[in-house]
Amino acid sequence: MQRTRLDLARTRAARQVIDPVFLDTPLYRCEALEPELGCAVSVKLETANPVRSFKGRGTEVVAHQLAAGGSRAVVCASAGNLGQALAWSGRGRGLDVTVVASRFATTAKLDRIRALGARLELVDGDHELARDRASELSRHHGIRLVEDSLDIETCEGAATIGLELADAATPFDTILIALGGGALATGVGRVLKAVVPHVEVICVQPLGAPAMTRSWHRRRVVTTDFTDTIADGVAGRRPLPEVLDDLLQVADDAVLVREESIVAGMRLLLDHAGLVVEPSAALGIAALLEDRDRFAGRHVVTVVCGSNVDMDAHRRWTGTAPHRGT
Amino acid sequence: MQRTRLDLARTRAARQVIDPVFLDTPLYRCEALEPELGCAVSVKLETANPVRSFKGRGTEVVAHQLAAGGSRAVVCASAGNLGQALAWSGRGRGLDVTVVASRFATTAKLDRIRALGARLELVDGDHELARDRASELSRHHGIRLVEDSLDIETCEGAATIGLELADAATPFDTILIALGGGALATGVGRVLKAVVPHVEVICVQPLGAPAMTRSWHRRRVVTTDFTDTIADGVAGRRPLPEVLDDLLQVADDAVLVREESIVAGMRLLLDHAGLVVEPSAALGIAALLEDRDRFAGRHVVTVVCGSNVDMDAHRRWTGTAPHRGT
Repeated sequence: MQRTRLDLARTRAARQVIDPVFLDTPLYRCEALEPELGCAVSVKLETANPVRSFKGRGTEVVAHQLAAGGSRAVVCASAGNLGQALAWSGRGRGLDVTVVASRFATTAKLDRIRALGARLELVDGDHELARDRASELSRHHGIRLVEDSLDIETCEGAATIGLELADAATPFDTILIALGGGALATGVGRVLKAVVPHVEVICVQPLGAPAMTRSWHRRRVVTTDFTDTIADGVAGRRPLPEVLDDLLQVADDAVLVREESIVAGMRLLLDHAGLVVEPSAALGIAALLEDRDRFAGRHVVTVVCGSNVDMDAHRRWTGTAPHRGT
Repeated sequence: MQRTRLDLARTRAARQVIDPVFLDTPLYRCEALEPELGCAVSVKLETANPVRSFKGRGTEVVAHQLAAGGSRAVVCASAGNLGQALAWSGRGRGLDVTVVASRFATTAKLDRIRALGARLELVDGDHELARDRASELSRHHGIRLVEDSLDIETCEGAATIGLELADAATPFDTILIALGGGALATGVGRVLKAVVPHVEVICVQPLGAPAMTRSWHRRRVVTTDFTDTIADGVAGRRPLPEVLDDLLQVADDAVLVREESIVAGMRLLLDHAGLVVEPSAALGIAALLEDRDRFAGRHVVTVVCGSNVDMDAHRRWTGTAPHRGT
């Protein structure tokens, strides 16, 4: 096993401090999807919890540590899911939570961050500007900055999904993981490569936000000037070198998918699995749709990582149904 | 504890033969629903499994017993969810499964029964006619008839949900349970009354299919001539006396809700919880919408019992969104 920043023993220990509501999430075959996709498909469903994404696994670890160390406040930048999860985890432990987000972030996510009692500061720019501002607030107020994918707790929190997948009763061949900052991919990938190394780990990113995927292929950080995707949860422009190093150790491939495939994936998950998902959570299905030959006959697991989506947009995207079957 | 046909030890034993994919389902607060409903609301989510309803818990017990006893075939009448679950459980154990359903049953359910390899026979009438026909097939071919709610395995399978609820980390005051044939209500109710007797057990049925609720209130079987509801999963006309007897022991109340409340409940679950549910699974939310004063300030759990719904109909019901909040 090659080395990454992630530690398997710490990941196992993380399970002890994460609220069980985020753990042992459903993993099941969705046979009704399979005629459209040409392979066996299972979903690991990370949406059936109080914050509707996998991010609670990481924020629980962070908030536990902060509370144990006597901290009173914490700040993060977020496209919405990390902020919501940190607001939830912080509220339960008496922490003052500040979330910095782009004013273009998904409204449903911003509403929930406010509803959970966090202070929300919006910046007039994209997620990278929010990261800069959160860093500034952290320095100015001397409070902990949670940096998604850089802070090892966010990766090892996500990696607890890998522990559950490695324990799956039914073996599988391939895992498809949404790639944004990299916490989910490096976390899950690290555990699978250690425990079930035959499982192929494939990261999926939108063509409209390809920075980390390009970086993985070139084995050095590649940034982009802008992003253009509906998959708000994975729309970063500046990959972190530490995270890229980890990703290079655990990913077998990283692929880019078109926007129309993401929409088709959301529609398939709605029509044939009854699942409302946010665009980032449909990236795996999008990858299957774009390369049926590659996955034909395999058993593929995809992590349905979040369902925080503006329902008006979701209705617009999924309203007509060319993929609806028989 | 008053007596019912259900046995707690057998229910605990049932967990050992049920495929774990149906067990330990998510239970979590949906705070985003709460401003609309005026109480704390948690959902017990029974849709994230291969058959998208709770019925697999019972059919696993039945199929296990049949396979252990050397049986090769089984028949049931179904509005769709029992048939799908029996098809799944039977397929895994080499059983020939026949399902009899109304030709007016939900298309999505009938499609899945066929896809799972069961023989599907449609009758030109409602669910009660399907019951008669299944009984006839059973006698004619000498094969086991699975009668939902009458056969104790279907009740004790459902009752395993009660075991999980009784173990919930966060206490709750009230459980709202969809009432059809009665397996879910008598099963869950039996366990809760035995283990956490302070929890109020309330059954919810559509005004358009009120037979069991009327029977409960009059303490004797009341039948109806027809049903008129979109909640196909609970649309029975002829309550079974044995099941009514059990229900009288464990239910604190049984209420009827209007069709427009069921639709509003489906819409709320979609818009504020990101959940696609079939009409029967929205009965609990419908009850909250119809009597906010009764539940104000309480912590209510509702069992989201299924998500097998025709998506065209679901889109029609939930397409406009008067309940969508800020």
